[in-house]
Amino acid sequence: MRSAEGRTRVAVEGVHPEVDGGEFAVKRIVGDVLTVEANLLVDGHDLVAGEVLYHHLPADIWQSSGMRPIGQGRWRGEFPAEELGEYEYTVRGWIDRFGTWRAEMKKRLAASQDVGVDCLIGAGLVEDAASRADGNDAARLREWASLLRHGRPEIALDDDLAAVVRCYPDRRFAGRYPRILRLVVDRPRAAFASWYEMFPRSCGTLRECESRLPYVASMGFDVLYLPPIHPIGHTYRKGKNNRTEAAEDDAGSPWAIGSEEGGHTSVHPGLGTTADFDHLVLKARELGIEIALDLAFQCSPDHPWVREHPEWFRHRPDGTIQYAENPPKKYQDIYPLDFETPQWRELWEELKRVVLFWMDRGVEIFRVDNPHTKAFGFWEWLIAEIKRENPRVLFLSEALTRPRIMYRLAKLGFSQSYTYFTWRNTKSELTAYFRELTQTDLREYFRANLWPNTPDILPEFLQTGGRAAFMIRLILAATLAANYGIYGPAFELCEGAARERGSEEYLNSEKYESKRWNLDTPWSLKHLIARVNRIRRENPALQCDGNLRFHETGNPAVICYSKTNDDLSDIVIVVGNLDVFHTQTGWVTLDLAALGLGASRAFQAHDLLSDGRYLWQGPHNYFELVPGSLPAHIMKVRRWLRTEKDFDYYL
Amino acid sequence: MRSAEGRTRVAVEGVHPEVDGGEFAVKRIVGDVLTVEANLLVDGHDLVAGEVLYHHLPADIWQSSGMRPIGQGRWRGEFPAEELGEYEYTVRGWIDRFGTWRAEMKKRLAASQDVGVDCLIGAGLVEDAASRADGNDAARLREWASLLRHGRPEIALDDDLAAVVRCYPDRRFAGRYPRILRLVVDRPRAAFASWYEMFPRSCGTLRECESRLPYVASMGFDVLYLPPIHPIGHTYRKGKNNRTEAAEDDAGSPWAIGSEEGGHTSVHPGLGTTADFDHLVLKARELGIEIALDLAFQCSPDHPWVREHPEWFRHRPDGTIQYAENPPKKYQDIYPLDFETPQWRELWEELKRVVLFWMDRGVEIFRVDNPHTKAFGFWEWLIAEIKRENPRVLFLSEALTRPRIMYRLAKLGFSQSYTYFTWRNTKSELTAYFRELTQTDLREYFRANLWPNTPDILPEFLQTGGRAAFMIRLILAATLAANYGIYGPAFELCEGAARERGSEEYLNSEKYESKRWNLDTPWSLKHLIARVNRIRRENPALQCDGNLRFHETGNPAVICYSKTNDDLSDIVIVVGNLDVFHTQTGWVTLDLAALGLGASRAFQAHDLLSDGRYLWQGPHNYFELVPGSLPAHIMKVRRWLRTEKDFDYYL
Repeated sequence: MRSAEGRTRVAVEGVHPEVDGGEFAVKRIVGDVLTVEANLLVDGHDLVAGEVLYHHLPADIWQSSGMRPIGQGRWRGEFPAEELGEYEYTVRGWIDRFGTWRAEMKKRLAASQDVGVDCLIGAGLVEDAASRADGNDAARLREWASLLRHGRPEIALDDDLAAVVRCYPDRRFAGRYPRILRLVVDRPRAAFASWYEMFPRSCGTLRECESRLPYVASMGFDVLYLPPIHPIGHTYRKGKNNRTEAAEDDAGSPWAIGSEEGGHTSVHPGLGTTADFDHLVLKARELGIEIALDLAFQCSPDHPWVREHPEWFRHRPDGTIQYAENPPKKYQDIYPLDFETPQWRELWEELKRVVLFWMDRGVEIFRVDNPHTKAFGFWEWLIAEIKRENPRVLFLSEALTRPRIMYRLAKLGFSQSYTYFTWRNTKSELTAYFRELTQTDLREYFRANLWPNTPDILPEFLQTGGRAAFMIRLILAATLAANYGIYGPAFELCEGAARERGSEEYLNSEKYESKRWNLDTPWSLKHLIARVNRIRRENPALQCDGNLRFHETGNPAVICYSKTNDDLSDIVIVVGNLDVFHTQTGWVTLDLAALGLGASRAFQAHDLLSDGRYLWQGPHNYFELVPGSLPAHIMKVRRWLRTEKDFDYYL
Repeated sequence: MRSAEGRTRVAVEGVHPEVDGGEFAVKRIVGDVLTVEANLLVDGHDLVAGEVLYHHLPADIWQSSGMRPIGQGRWRGEFPAEELGEYEYTVRGWIDRFGTWRAEMKKRLAASQDVGVDCLIGAGLVEDAASRADGNDAARLREWASLLRHGRPEIALDDDLAAVVRCYPDRRFAGRYPRILRLVVDRPRAAFASWYEMFPRSCGTLRECESRLPYVASMGFDVLYLPPIHPIGHTYRKGKNNRTEAAEDDAGSPWAIGSEEGGHTSVHPGLGTTADFDHLVLKARELGIEIALDLAFQCSPDHPWVREHPEWFRHRPDGTIQYAENPPKKYQDIYPLDFETPQWRELWEELKRVVLFWMDRGVEIFRVDNPHTKAFGFWEWLIAEIKRENPRVLFLSEALTRPRIMYRLAKLGFSQSYTYFTWRNTKSELTAYFRELTQTDLREYFRANLWPNTPDILPEFLQTGGRAAFMIRLILAATLAANYGIYGPAFELCEGAARERGSEEYLNSEKYESKRWNLDTPWSLKHLIARVNRIRRENPALQCDGNLRFHETGNPAVICYSKTNDDLSDIVIVVGNLDVFHTQTGWVTLDLAALGLGASRAFQAHDLLSDGRYLWQGPHNYFELVPGSLPAHIMKVRRWLRTEKDFDYYL
């Protein structure tokens, strides 16, 4: 038996959103409204009412928000995600006795039935409500009850009475959804951010990096992500182009963390000091840029932990420590941490201490290196612990592995996630993938962050497509999702040389050596990037992911999609030429209903990239896109302000 | 933190089937195999293994059944539903340490690496397995370990070793799905039954009903459902054609249950005695027919409960008992039970006693009248209580209300459910509805029972379509779902007269009067029904619902669908003309892949209705259907046994 109270007649089921039966939280940002739907079902013909119950943690006083029916027993309500942190929510429903009685009274009166007894029943219901009401309301209700008792049936239809009674429902036998669900509320940057990744050592020291900040800011980026800035090991250090033998002056990979000079809470002496880092954080902030650090939880053989905590590593029968490998490949410059160590608690605490250390230096965004090679339970614990400490902190999951594992990491708490966008080039690939990300329940917890390139991945498309390929991939990344990033300056300088054919590794990869980039080449995309980022900032439609819709183009090389904000006051239509070699033309077929546009009225399609203004009408509209100069439109829909029909002489 | 054990690295998620986060049971019949899928996810590159855990209740010893990977981290396993009653199941997964080591050894050996230390690691893993093994296996494992320790790396690839180690996995840190799910196992009749409903009083007494049994059996029905057989109230008794004033000799509606002669555990004196009922049950059983009774939990004003338990009814302020109404309509011959009575426990127990009373008389199937007007919690409790007593008992939910409520009742435990089939006539209506029922998770718990007519519903299609309409609706009901029923003899005699235009009530409805039917009219469909029911019995494909597939016909008036059993050894293709006035022709386009048929080999489409045999090949095949004589094909696919290519001279 479900309940010790057999008189509970309202069942609540099918609550949405819900992730894995409530095991994980849904995600929103501050200022969002969480819309909650549920089935409120009751036997027989009684009317029901219901509400969303919610509270911000740790407060345990539940607040409520009424729900309204949307048909077929389904109800909808919402509550505002006003505060950072975690909310709990659930739904309850009850029988609306007064509403039921009132609806029946209407029918009885319309049929001129004798309603003497029914008035008495109603009076009883109103008196019950009065007993739950306070002060003035109680008095008013008693007065109405008295009128009903004295044979004034028309009182039943009094809207004021209904409104007051509705405030005092009888919830004694309310039915409640059997599970309590969770919502995590992040700051807006979790949902909308433009990332720029660069190797600080290619600027010189951290102090020298500061002079690069205006350049980054001028392109409109608001997150500057630095690969690990810690001391680099020398045992088995990798040489240029990932050679197993390093030369004397080879800088090594920043991901081989730790040496006699320190580990995850130290700064590489060649970069400077923690004080220099603090200064960089401040200077960046002045330009509206947040510094994001890399959490790469692995060690070089020279890391202090290896000496101080050998129990955190796996030991082989010959007494050596197990290095990283993917047989037959060996990565002897890296020792993975052993998440199965009996001392896992101490290890977890130390890793948390690392995060707290950098949070103390003002870092509130972490890009997590290969989270899918560390225990899931650790991430769930760490992110919860950190966000309890400071709910502003965001974590980007750099997991490029099986989709289910990428999605699992997002459920465990990662704020944003790398995606397969990097390898999705064709229209059908892009369409299928972004439908999956934005039109399934993934949207409740998986926030895509799109990278056309990374230091690890120079995709074939960029190797072969030239500057036009960089242009279209930038525009797609920046408009398909609200979060995107590039690894620069390699990206804006259209660096397309791979180490060898079939490899996605950069030739002379910056992972293994410092590079001096010429930022002023005439083919730099910095102006295009600046323009695209400004378009993103100025158009709310591009700052959220939920309302992505694809439209037909009749041309397999041309993709068309729209993004809108919730009230459709901002509509952006992107038409992109995926063919980087040929001009493509054709006709889009817009889903006007999805855009809230009528077929009868023309509108201006204002291309925010070229500043061209096209007069479009109805679903079918022409496009012509030239790779290299105009690979895409990012069109803002501007309603045509006046026609002759708007003047009264036309009436 | 999810677990006190941080070393648990395998996550189990996405278990299917699961109803409402495990709140409700899935349903199967004895002999079925429950296929269970889950994602088994682990960080890093380790291999995993997993199993379905299950046990029959109340035994609490869990059994296990291994799972196999089906790609992308998804795993599948199954267990046999061998016993009636309830099972619990869940999934656990663990790291396959030996398998991981072995796979890596293969690569190391292939790359001719030094594997000295790796042999020692493997030896340790095998010794660990030995410590979990018994007797002979333990000894063999120790021997293998010793060989590995002494530098015999090729042992790593020994399949016998792998097979033995696999029997003794290290499950210390196994991950477990966070919920335990439930399975209800019914007897086969829950999934496959042919119902016949008839009013016993139209035969005379229960003893006289016995002479009707051979007729029912000859048509191939195996469930004979009788509307209530209890004493009928006389207060506000309804007259013929539902008149509010009954004449002296009016029989009344069997659903107005209870009089001075007794209530829900009594037999109407005009029908006989409980002994007569017992005799009828026995005689029916001899013919392979089960008697199903109606559970209509409502009372006439003359029911003994009204006197003995006034507290089970709602009282109005004037002291009268609340009769049924749907304002402005009044049903003063019926008092609903008040499921909100403070004495709900006593009421529930009494209703359970009614069920037990008829179970003692051999009844194991109950058709429940309007379950959606009684509290959900009551049904969940009652069905669980009864099935604990006797898991053979089945309940058919006669709820024709909002779909979500119909589905909720199925979740609460009803074995079968009435559906909207009664009102689904067009191809697009039928296709959409049966896709919903059979190709969504509804299939896990909602078993459709299709009724082309009921005493309450003579649908317009039957009123207007004549005998051809009855024919096609019978064939659709009997082949679209494994459970179906007709209300006879009105159905087989093609009774199509409604009380008035726009009404679905029968003229001179048998609900309010006894009828003498002439079963031997030449237009009776009894022979067609007998043939259809024999086809159902002889074709396993028609005895389950899951494998229904629709195929194109290019003709909106002709529907085509197939049903198959799981191993595709039985394939039935139905082509039905929904136009009861015109011959329709056209070409079906079979989804050959779904049927496991190749395009290159012809097959015989043997129409089991007409005995016509058509040679079909490939997807496109011609049909011609004449309403009134050949409104449908029910075609069994018979593989063409021999062609010249099967002889060796053709090679």
